[in-house]
Amino acid sequence: MLRSIATVSVSGTLVEKLAAIRAAGFDGVEIFENDLLYFDGSPADIRKRCADLGLQIMLFQPFRDFEGVSKERLAQNLNRAQRKFELMHELGTDLVLVCSNVNANAIADDALIVDQLGQLALLAEREGVRVGFEALAWGKHVNSYRHAWRLVDAVDHPSLGVILDSFHTLSVGDPIDPIADIPGDRIAFVQIADAPLQKMDVLEWSRHYRCFPGQGDFDVAGFADRVLATGYRGPFSLEIFNDGFRAAPTAATAADGYRSLLYLEEQAARRRVAPAAQQPLFTPPAPPSHSGFQFIEFAVDSTSAPRLAQRFAEAGFHAAGRHRSKDVTLYQQGDASIVLNAETDSFASGFFHTHGLSLCASAFQVDDAARVFERATSFGYAPFSGRVGPNERVVPSVRAPDGSLHYFVDARPDEPTLYEADFVLNPPAPDATHSKAEQGRLERIDHVCLNLPADALDTWVLYFKAVFGFEAEPAWLLPDPYGLVRSRAVRSADGSVRIVLNASQDAHTSVAESLNTYRGSGLSHVAFVTDDIFAAVEQLRARDVRLLKIPPNYYDDLEARYDFPDGMVTKMRDAHVLYDRDAQGGEFFHVYTEQMDGRFFLEVVQRTGGYDGYGAVNAPVRLAAQAQRKNGSTT
Amino acid sequence: MLRSIATVSVSGTLVEKLAAIRAAGFDGVEIFENDLLYFDGSPADIRKRCADLGLQIMLFQPFRDFEGVSKERLAQNLNRAQRKFELMHELGTDLVLVCSNVNANAIADDALIVDQLGQLALLAEREGVRVGFEALAWGKHVNSYRHAWRLVDAVDHPSLGVILDSFHTLSVGDPIDPIADIPGDRIAFVQIADAPLQKMDVLEWSRHYRCFPGQGDFDVAGFADRVLATGYRGPFSLEIFNDGFRAAPTAATAADGYRSLLYLEEQAARRRVAPAAQQPLFTPPAPPSHSGFQFIEFAVDSTSAPRLAQRFAEAGFHAAGRHRSKDVTLYQQGDASIVLNAETDSFASGFFHTHGLSLCASAFQVDDAARVFERATSFGYAPFSGRVGPNERVVPSVRAPDGSLHYFVDARPDEPTLYEADFVLNPPAPDATHSKAEQGRLERIDHVCLNLPADALDTWVLYFKAVFGFEAEPAWLLPDPYGLVRSRAVRSADGSVRIVLNASQDAHTSVAESLNTYRGSGLSHVAFVTDDIFAAVEQLRARDVRLLKIPPNYYDDLEARYDFPDGMVTKMRDAHVLYDRDAQGGEFFHVYTEQMDGRFFLEVVQRTGGYDGYGAVNAPVRLAAQAQRKNGSTT
Repeated sequence: MLRSIATVSVSGTLVEKLAAIRAAGFDGVEIFENDLLYFDGSPADIRKRCADLGLQIMLFQPFRDFEGVSKERLAQNLNRAQRKFELMHELGTDLVLVCSNVNANAIADDALIVDQLGQLALLAEREGVRVGFEALAWGKHVNSYRHAWRLVDAVDHPSLGVILDSFHTLSVGDPIDPIADIPGDRIAFVQIADAPLQKMDVLEWSRHYRCFPGQGDFDVAGFADRVLATGYRGPFSLEIFNDGFRAAPTAATAADGYRSLLYLEEQAARRRVAPAAQQPLFTPPAPPSHSGFQFIEFAVDSTSAPRLAQRFAEAGFHAAGRHRSKDVTLYQQGDASIVLNAETDSFASGFFHTHGLSLCASAFQVDDAARVFERATSFGYAPFSGRVGPNERVVPSVRAPDGSLHYFVDARPDEPTLYEADFVLNPPAPDATHSKAEQGRLERIDHVCLNLPADALDTWVLYFKAVFGFEAEPAWLLPDPYGLVRSRAVRSADGSVRIVLNASQDAHTSVAESLNTYRGSGLSHVAFVTDDIFAAVEQLRARDVRLLKIPPNYYDDLEARYDFPDGMVTKMRDAHVLYDRDAQGGEFFHVYTEQMDGRFFLEVVQRTGGYDGYGAVNAPVRLAAQAQRKNGSTT
Repeated sequence: MLRSIATVSVSGTLVEKLAAIRAAGFDGVEIFENDLLYFDGSPADIRKRCADLGLQIMLFQPFRDFEGVSKERLAQNLNRAQRKFELMHELGTDLVLVCSNVNANAIADDALIVDQLGQLALLAEREGVRVGFEALAWGKHVNSYRHAWRLVDAVDHPSLGVILDSFHTLSVGDPIDPIADIPGDRIAFVQIADAPLQKMDVLEWSRHYRCFPGQGDFDVAGFADRVLATGYRGPFSLEIFNDGFRAAPTAATAADGYRSLLYLEEQAARRRVAPAAQQPLFTPPAPPSHSGFQFIEFAVDSTSAPRLAQRFAEAGFHAAGRHRSKDVTLYQQGDASIVLNAETDSFASGFFHTHGLSLCASAFQVDDAARVFERATSFGYAPFSGRVGPNERVVPSVRAPDGSLHYFVDARPDEPTLYEADFVLNPPAPDATHSKAEQGRLERIDHVCLNLPADALDTWVLYFKAVFGFEAEPAWLLPDPYGLVRSRAVRSADGSVRIVLNASQDAHTSVAESLNTYRGSGLSHVAFVTDDIFAAVEQLRARDVRLLKIPPNYYDDLEARYDFPDGMVTKMRDAHVLYDRDAQGGEFFHVYTEQMDGRFFLEVVQRTGGYDGYGAVNAPVRLAAQAQRKNGSTT
């Protein structure tokens, strides 16, 4: 199907916008009037530029406050429309968006409005253009698509259709099923936007917080499905007012927008209960099913390699093997695998190496690695091919939004494992026959937490939803002593892979500082699961691992808030273990190591009773403790 | 009167907060519970730290969801209260804030609540502490101070008082006159916050958008006046939840907070219709009356001096004189004066010089310069003393928030003017006897526009209100091609001095880039008044001044939107004049020069019919035209 975007959705001058929109793959654009007004050339120049790029101008917008007006005003408005229709000829588009009147003195008289829209339709017919009428959610009288459609239906003129907009429909909880009552050929155009749920004035929400489908909380796929069921054959067109997008790099935003439409088409196609869509939709290979992290890989140099190896050894990891052809070492504990990559000619060294310790790659266990790779590249994410030695396994991989690598590894029952294929494995560690208590207490990776630049959150959420088929949880706003951090978790349906994304709103939070200090992927920490947090702490301490000291007042407050068995709070205080409890009584115990290089750290977590979060309520005390640790002890 | 602030109002660790709060001049603090929980020491350590600093801990807060609960929950809550009262002993404070229950299942039974608050009061009495009960604007059952007071009054126990909060009262439009019905000694504490008017959920508004009194839109002075009329003798305490403050430098925010309380006391004292306040209030010297800009002064070096001089000459300024003792030149046109300061050992050179062209000082005509100086320093703004030659006038001056200088100059009928005293003036320009049309068309400075760092807007607004007695207009959010700019104008009551403050929300707008490129005061442009914009343009063009080219489409849209006399739009298009019209028919014509160094430019404006704005609706087209100019023409 045709894919379009309104020029207001991306940053830059109109020239920059059009180039980026075309490069992203869009078939067409809506020209937002302000972009035309600010352009230092004629409408014909814009027409030519779009034609040269191969972009169709699908719509000109907006034309405001036309209907429900006095006779005198109507004459003025028709005159104004006449001028804009002439402009549309120059621009080379035949469709204009007329949005419902928001003036306080708009007349609430449907018969009058039908008459006036009818006059507009006749004028449009004479000028050889078409008018699409859209209900704004904050329209004075007309503020629902059902009302707009009743008016358009009453006018019953081929030059007048209705325009649907997912934001105006879903933001106010307008039911989507009645969309099916509209004949597809009477829908002039369809605008698409998602948004995070917010308790705020709908106009402000619309103007500042819209986002691409998949990045917000609306059922945009359900909306799209109902539209497709009508037989509508026009484009889906993104119309996004977003303060962050206005400031973000033009090309990257446009690329995300295009991907979000592909994702929407896939989601809508899955929803399908009505007859098959009359439009061909994007159908990528199915998303993977997950069974956990395969490994995470750090780029190291001669300084950081031994330090990091020692830290993981202290945390109970053993050196499990060396890569057959590369300067790469494998550390393991339970099902958790860590790879240290000291290659000097590799991607890692070129990209991350000179910047100290960095996460350069993550590998994920999936049902079919080749299929995920196909899926990722079908969404336009960049494939990666590395050097592969003889008999080593070719591991499909793509670049994540920050340039780091994501590998996909599938189980192959009849073949050697990835580690057997690529590594010279050490004999089992001497303690492998010992009891569990003597081995490491860490069982597997629970989650990985990444520090992202401000405004990168939406890009990553879309990436993980589109490529990995992840779900995204609602965002948290976490206070750091020096500003706010926005945090959002994504996870596989089964919870075997969980990634927490942190983006700093401000320049001096620890999240921002970690990105200022180091380039490359912003790894905050890796969390490992244990089934006995206190035994794990004891073991870490026996190996001289320094734990992040949690202020004692935190525990006094815990004691005031919850009932605990006798001695439990003392035990937590002594072990620097933080605590959370969900509404169902599920519990979360977690403990942090001190930071390496003022940045990277480890977390150990224990989940009971189905607790499914990340202890976000404790993030502020952790951030404050880390800040106090950096500033020196204060008492 | 006592001045206090909640620790949540400023950024940093608790140690940093307390030091900054004391340095700003506060008598005491509210300890916000999270700051205590995150502090890596005991409550007694905090007590000692505050005692060492000479800060009184006036309140511990918040204690949540106490009242309107089941019998079982009440027992838990009393137990929780008992623990917090013990903590308060350690902390060394005897007052706790209990805020009204926000739980969905809070019981709406006033008799029950009176009973439960009564039990809390008895417990408090036994523990030797006091409880203040505050209605949150979003409390489930108790959400107005009048309701909270009725409950407290019914309990009638000396250990229980009511806490008033200007935000919770003014945000929901609760009337303030009934405050007078509360005996002053039953008001346990008073919290102060202002906020910009916003259409949004009151909880979100409260948590993210509060600001210091004078920075927002609330009638905080009226609120404070009513409180004082009760005979209340406790402190005014700032409790500000503000995303910007959380990330801003601690000391500067605390200093602004203290000033804002001084300003509030002055404003409340002026409001006074009730008997004189029983508390001594801050009474600074009265704010000035204004009669315009005296001059604006640029720091120049050997490169920028001739270029800037030429630009002003092209704009119709003539060299009017040289300073008697400094390398400083005066340019004049009409009543507009520009000073170029090439001193190499001056403040200007040390601070701004190496960074190219900068505005280093502005001088303002006031009724009594010494009084404004006293006023500014009484608010804690830094005085400045420069080198003064023999017989030169000593000009009282202070440092503006960016370190540039603000001079105050008063009219002294029996003395030489400032220029006569300090400058060797040139003979009148040869064209002084010519007709006005042959002289310069610019009459005086209309306004100056400053580019500020993000989050500096509130600081500047407070500065101009407190020192200059200015009014602040509502903020505009202006789209630049690369992000958003927040713009707010301040002005003297008579409009003779107007300053527009622009702060970029994003890193790559032209406003932000100008601050990235140059350090020092972020002058955007200076606007001059003319009484004939087209004649002024003609004169500028005759002198080869390059005007900012406005896209022709802008004029086609103007023509569609307004009725103009024949030929008027063509005239504006040819002259690159922008246009705005207010609801009363007042008109604004304005034109911009191209930027110097990609930054500083001039504006010429004509106001008719009482138009009182700045053409903010045209800022986006101007910003886009400047961006296109920088990126090269696109057609």
